Amino acid sequence: MSWQKLDELCHKLESLEHAKAMLSADEATQMPAGGGAKRAEAVAFISGLYHEMASAPEIADWIHAARSQTETDDQVAALAEFERAYRDRTCLPAEFVRRKTEADMRSEQLWRELRPTSDWNTFRPALEGVIELAREEAAMRSAAGGLDPYDALIDQFDPGSRADQIAPVFATLKAFLKDFLPRVIDAQERRLAKRPLKALAGPYPVEGQRRLGLALMRAVGFDFEHGRLDTSHHPFCGGVPTDVRMTTRYREDDFLVALMGVLHETGHALYEQNLPKDWSHWPLGQARGMSIHESQSLFMEMQVARMPEFWEWAMPQVHEHLGQTVEGWTGADVLAHVNHVQAGFIRVDADEVTYPLHVILRFELEQELISGRLQVADIPEAWDAKMREYLGLGTLDNPRDGPMQDVHWPVGLFGYFPSYTLGALTAAQQWWALEREMPDIREDVRAGRFDRLIDWRKANIWSQGSRYSTPDLVVRSTGKPLDPEIFVAHLTQRYLG
Amino acid sequence: MSWQKLDELCHKLESLEHAKAMLSADEATQMPAGGGAKRAEAVAFISGLYHEMASAPEIADWIHAARSQTETDDQVAALAEFERAYRDRTCLPAEFVRRKTEADMRSEQLWRELRPTSDWNTFRPALEGVIELAREEAAMRSAAGGLDPYDALIDQFDPGSRADQIAPVFATLKAFLKDFLPRVIDAQERRLAKRPLKALAGPYPVEGQRRLGLALMRAVGFDFEHGRLDTSHHPFCGGVPTDVRMTTRYREDDFLVALMGVLHETGHALYEQNLPKDWSHWPLGQARGMSIHESQSLFMEMQVARMPEFWEWAMPQVHEHLGQTVEGWTGADVLAHVNHVQAGFIRVDADEVTYPLHVILRFELEQELISGRLQVADIPEAWDAKMREYLGLGTLDNPRDGPMQDVHWPVGLFGYFPSYTLGALTAAQQWWALEREMPDIREDVRAGRFDRLIDWRKANIWSQGSRYSTPDLVVRSTGKPLDPEIFVAHLTQRYLG
Repeated sequence: MSWQKLDELCHKLESLEHAKAMLSADEATQMPAGGGAKRAEAVAFISGLYHEMASAPEIADWIHAARSQTETDDQVAALAEFERAYRDRTCLPAEFVRRKTEADMRSEQLWRELRPTSDWNTFRPALEGVIELAREEAAMRSAAGGLDPYDALIDQFDPGSRADQIAPVFATLKAFLKDFLPRVIDAQERRLAKRPLKALAGPYPVEGQRRLGLALMRAVGFDFEHGRLDTSHHPFCGGVPTDVRMTTRYREDDFLVALMGVLHETGHALYEQNLPKDWSHWPLGQARGMSIHESQSLFMEMQVARMPEFWEWAMPQVHEHLGQTVEGWTGADVLAHVNHVQAGFIRVDADEVTYPLHVILRFELEQELISGRLQVADIPEAWDAKMREYLGLGTLDNPRDGPMQDVHWPVGLFGYFPSYTLGALTAAQQWWALEREMPDIREDVRAGRFDRLIDWRKANIWSQGSRYSTPDLVVRSTGKPLDPEIFVAHLTQRYLG
Repeated sequence: MSWQKLDELCHKLESLEHAKAMLSADEATQMPAGGGAKRAEAVAFISGLYHEMASAPEIADWIHAARSQTETDDQVAALAEFERAYRDRTCLPAEFVRRKTEADMRSEQLWRELRPTSDWNTFRPALEGVIELAREEAAMRSAAGGLDPYDALIDQFDPGSRADQIAPVFATLKAFLKDFLPRVIDAQERRLAKRPLKALAGPYPVEGQRRLGLALMRAVGFDFEHGRLDTSHHPFCGGVPTDVRMTTRYREDDFLVALMGVLHETGHALYEQNLPKDWSHWPLGQARGMSIHESQSLFMEMQVARMPEFWEWAMPQVHEHLGQTVEGWTGADVLAHVNHVQAGFIRVDADEVTYPLHVILRFELEQELISGRLQVADIPEAWDAKMREYLGLGTLDNPRDGPMQDVHWPVGLFGYFPSYTLGALTAAQQWWALEREMPDIREDVRAGRFDRLIDWRKANIWSQGSRYSTPDLVVRSTGKPLDPEIFVAHLTQRYLG
C-alpha cells in the first residue's frame, strides 16, 4: 500500500536526518580538527543517500496512489506537504544541481578568501556565475510550481509567502523607519545624558554565565530531557526535536551576548521540542519555515526578553549567578544595553530598529538581481545609495562591510533574507494577539510564570507543524494577515513610549 | 571494474560506520535521556543499511572478478580480508539472524531484570534458547568456513585463533597460577605487614584527575588532533581512527580507577589512531581483532603503567595535579594498590594474577556448552567446582556473582572470553620482545620518553592493520608463537621478584 510505503520512507529519511543533524552538532561542539576530512566524507555520503532516497522516481507513483488512501485530515495535509517537498527536491535536473553545488562552493571559498581584503573585483565574476545559476534555478522552480521566479525561491524557505504581499508590508515599514530612526536616536541621547550606559567590564566568569543561561532556559520552558546547551564558535539550535542541541558562545567582557543569544536560541528550541510527535517523520510534523522559526526565537528574545517585566523577574538570577561582577546592575541597565539603537553598516550587529532596513535593502536588490534588472557590477553603487537613504550612512569604501558582509549571496541563497524581518513582525503580532487574549499576561512575565505563554504558542504555532502555509498560519494564530502597523506600534511604544 | 566497485563500497561502508560510531559515542557522553528512542531508531536503520549494502549478493561476483585485478601485495591482502568479512556476514540466513537477534535481545533484557535478585531459575530457559541458537550459528559458520564449530565463533573476534592452540597455553597457565596464587598472597601479606596500603580517602577533585589523565595520555602518544577524552558511565574507546572518542569515569574516593582506566583506553586509542590510513575504508586497514586490541590496552596498562620506572616519571605529575590530596604518596604506594592481588568471585574486579583463571573457567565451560556436553541446568554446579579448584573460593549461593555476572552469554556472545587473557599474554610477550631488542628501554620509561615504545608498536603492530592472522601477527611482532612461559616469567618477576 502506497501510504504505507511513504510512511516507511519517511521513517528512513528521519533516521538519516537524525544522523546528519547529530554529526553536524558534534562537529561544531566536540570534534577535534583532525576529524574533519572523514567527517565531511561521512556527512556527504549520508546527504547523498538522503537525496537519492527522497527523490526516487517511484515516489511520484506512491504519492499519486496514496491520494485515494488518505482517511483523515492529517493524512491529507501530510500528503500535500510531502508532495510539495518532493517537488522542491526533484524539479531540478541532477546535472544542474551538481553544477550549481560546485559553483556555490567555489564561490563561498573565494568569498572567505577575498572578504578580509575587501577584494570585490576579484570576487565579482564568481558572484555573477552564482547569480546566473540562481536565475536558472528560479526559472525551473517557477515552471514546476507555477509561481513567479523570485517567489519560487522564497517558497522554499517560507511556503506560501509571496513577494507582492511582502513588498507593501516592507514599504510601510521602510517609510516609517526612515523617519522613526532619528527620533529614536534623539530620545535615546536624552535618556543616556541622564543615565549613561553601565560599563561592560567583566571579566564575567564563563561558568556563572553558563549557569545563568541554563536557569533561564529551564524557566522559559526548555526541556532538558530532550536537549542540552553546549558551546560553539557560531551559536546555533540544531539536533532533532527529541534531542535539541543548542549552543552559545561566551565573552568574558560582555555577559549580555551569550545571555540574549541563549534566549534567542531557546525560542527556536521550544518550537522544535513541541512539534507534533506523531508526525515527526513527515514534513507535516516539521517546523513551518524560516520566518515562523525566526518568529519563535524573536518572540523569546525581542518580545519577552526585552520587556521591563522580564528583567524584574530575571535580574535577581543575574545577580545570583554573576555575583559581584554585576554589582549595581538593574534591569533598566540591561534594557538600555540590549535596546540600544545605532545605525551601522553591518546587518548582524544591527538592533531591532535598524535591522529591518538592512533586510529591506537586500530584499529589494535581490529581486532585481534575479529578474536581471540589476547587474553585479552595479551592486556597490546601489548598496551605497540605499544605505545612505535608509540608514543615513555615508559612502563606504570597503565592500567587506557592504555587499561582501553576508554569506547568503556568495553561496547562492536568494529569497531567504526577507524571513528575518518577517519573523520579527510575526513575533510582534503574536505577542499582540496573545496580550489581547490575556490582558494581564505581562504580570505572568513579571512573576516568572511562563506556562500561559507556552500554552498559547503550543496551541497556536508549535503543534501546527507544517499544516498551514506561512501566511495562513499567521492569520490562524493572530487573527489577521501580517500587519506592519502592529510592529510599528511595538517599536513606538518601546523606543518612544 | 570490480576492484573499483569494492573500493567505492568500502568508502560507503566507512561513512556509515563513521556515523554509527559517532552516534554511539554521543549517546554515551552527551545525549539526554529523552533522545534515546529516536536515536535507537536511527542507529538501527543505519546498521540495517550497512548490513544490506555489505552483504549484497553481487559483491560475491565483484570479489571473484577482482582477484585478477589485484596488482600489489596490499591489494591481495585487502581482498582476502574483505572476502573473510563478507563470508562472516553472509553465511547466516537473514531469517536466522532476525530470530537470533530477537532472542538475544529478549534474553539480555531478562538478564538485566533478573540479575539483581539472582533469579537464575527464571532466567535459565532464556539462556537455553540463546545457547541453542549459538550452537546453530556455530554449525553454520563451521560449514561456511571449514572450521570446528567453536573455532568458527572465536574466528569472528580473533581471526586465526583456534581452541586447540589456546587450550595448551591456558592449561600451562592454569597449572602455574593455581600454585602461584597462594604464594603471591603470602608474599603480599608479608610486604603489607611492613608497609600497609596507603588509605584511599580523597576527595580527589575530578578536574585535577581529568588534567592528570590528559597529561599522561599526551605523554604516551595520544593525538588530540584526532581524538578527545570525555566522561561516561562505562568507559570505552570508540569513534573512528581520525577521531577517537575515549571516555573514563571519575570516583572522588579513588583516583586510581580513572587513571589506570585512562591508560588502558589510551592503549586502545593509540592502536586506532595509528592504523594504516590509506586502507582505513577496507577491513585490511582495521585493527586485527579483540585479543590484539586488548594486548594494546594491556601493554599500556599492565606492562608499562605498572612498572616502577613508570611511576618514577609519573608521580611528580600526580602530585602536580592532585596536590595535597595525595600528600605523602609515592610510586611504591600506587604500585601496591594497582598490583594488589586477591581472589574474588567477580571477573571485572579481578587483578592481573587471578583474571586469567576467570577467563579459563569461562573458556572451558563455553566449549562444553557449544558442543552440547554441558547443559544450562548444570552450569552453577560446574561453575562452583571450578571457582573452588582454581581460585580456592567457597560455594556461592547468589548466581548474580556467579554465572549471571557477565553480559556475554546472555547476549549470545560465545568465543569472545579467551581474547581477554590472550591479550594479556600477548602484551607481556610484546614487552619481552621489545626489551630484548632494546635492553635499556626501561630507562626511557623512567625518563618519560615514549617515542621508541611508540615506534616499535607502530612498526610491528599498528601499521599492520589486518594483514596477518592473529597468531601470525604474534609471531611476526615477537619472534615466536604465544608462549605462556613469558607471561609466567613476567608475573613471577612482578609478584615474587
